Amino acid sequence: MQAKKDSLIVVSGGMDSVTLMYDKRDSIALALSFDYGSKHNARELAFARLHAERLGVEHLVIPLGFMGEHFHSDLLLSGGSIPEGRYDEENMKSTVVPFRNGIMLAVAAGLAESRGLKRMYIANHFGDHAIYPDCRAAFIRPMAEAIREGTTNAVLTEAPYTSITKTDIARIGVALGIDYAETWSCYKGGEIHCGVCGTCVERKEAMREAGIADPTQYEE
Amino acid sequence: MQAKKDSLIVVSGGMDSVTLMYDKRDSIALALSFDYGSKHNARELAFARLHAERLGVEHLVIPLGFMGEHFHSDLLLSGGSIPEGRYDEENMKSTVVPFRNGIMLAVAAGLAESRGLKRMYIANHFGDHAIYPDCRAAFIRPMAEAIREGTTNAVLTEAPYTSITKTDIARIGVALGIDYAETWSCYKGGEIHCGVCGTCVERKEAMREAGIADPTQYEE
Repeated sequence: MQAKKDSLIVVSGGMDSVTLMYDKRDSIALALSFDYGSKHNARELAFARLHAERLGVEHLVIPLGFMGEHFHSDLLLSGGSIPEGRYDEENMKSTVVPFRNGIMLAVAAGLAESRGLKRMYIANHFGDHAIYPDCRAAFIRPMAEAIREGTTNAVLTEAPYTSITKTDIARIGVALGIDYAETWSCYKGGEIHCGVCGTCVERKEAMREAGIADPTQYEE
Repeated sequence: MQAKKDSLIVVSGGMDSVTLMYDKRDSIALALSFDYGSKHNARELAFARLHAERLGVEHLVIPLGFMGEHFHSDLLLSGGSIPEGRYDEENMKSTVVPFRNGIMLAVAAGLAESRGLKRMYIANHFGDHAIYPDCRAAFIRPMAEAIREGTTNAVLTEAPYTSITKTDIARIGVALGIDYAETWSCYKGGEIHCGVCGTCVERKEAMREAGIADPTQYEE
């Protein structure tokens, strides 16, 4: 039986959102990405587009140039250099982009209502929680309620990876046949993954812990 | 005693948000407007700028061009013509811009965190509730919680007019010395207020009920 295509997904082009897009592919009508001026936006978006095309899903990139211009974060082209180390270390906090998930979900909600879509997926996961307040269940729960109450068609927000780790996600992805060489994590946004920033370290660990041969080419 | 300038306000240039800006002027460090492609954006923004300058408050206009391009609403330049009649009539629903307040509050939250501001004001009021789901307390309450939980500095959202009418607001504004000729309501965005769209009808009624001589020039 063909599932109804009544959902959109917020997809960056990283491991988590690409995995979720394959996971929910039967119901996804629209893949939504955001160009908000991060150092790695171009690298990510190329993979978001590639997977959307492969799954035959419409892909829309929403420009949020005001974030690069007015927000303060080292993740942005306008910010300082990307710190190296583990994700949960204090110095990684400089990579927080203020309320990024809130902004992306709000825009996605408006689009979902405009398109008559009933459901939105976002792939925040447990490992994000240490430093990103807008990845936690304490944020997702009221945000989902605000979206349900604030849209005429009561749009639903689902974040199925909120309580699982990147290692769990990697296992799901491999079972779905995803080649993680075709995803982007590195915050530095260079030619290849740096291997030493917080997301690269987490990416390596997730594949190792999941028992996957890491297909990523790293500088270090 | 000088109050601390630790707040921002979302200001359109209409009666409600201009009144709130004067009401909270002692604590406002930033007035935030949005250009989202509505028919009356240019008219509104001119008054938002005028009052911010008069109060010596920084005024920032965030472009949200994607809404005009991808969202469906007759309020937008890309939509159909503005219906005439009362605000609470069925045909006015075509002027709903999907999740507009959610998007504006989310962007404002990111900016508040970036600037180290503690509080945000928005001037949604009771009369909006009939047709705009993102003006109701049932939306504002969880949205405020999502913003508090999703920002590193726990930004507060205050919507002090949620339970009062536009007539109440007009009384506050007159007491504050505001000349409502220097505000814009009309959804049609012509040279002068049309006098027959939902917001014009509400504007007229509010001034009449508040016992204020309406300084607005109307076409009809």
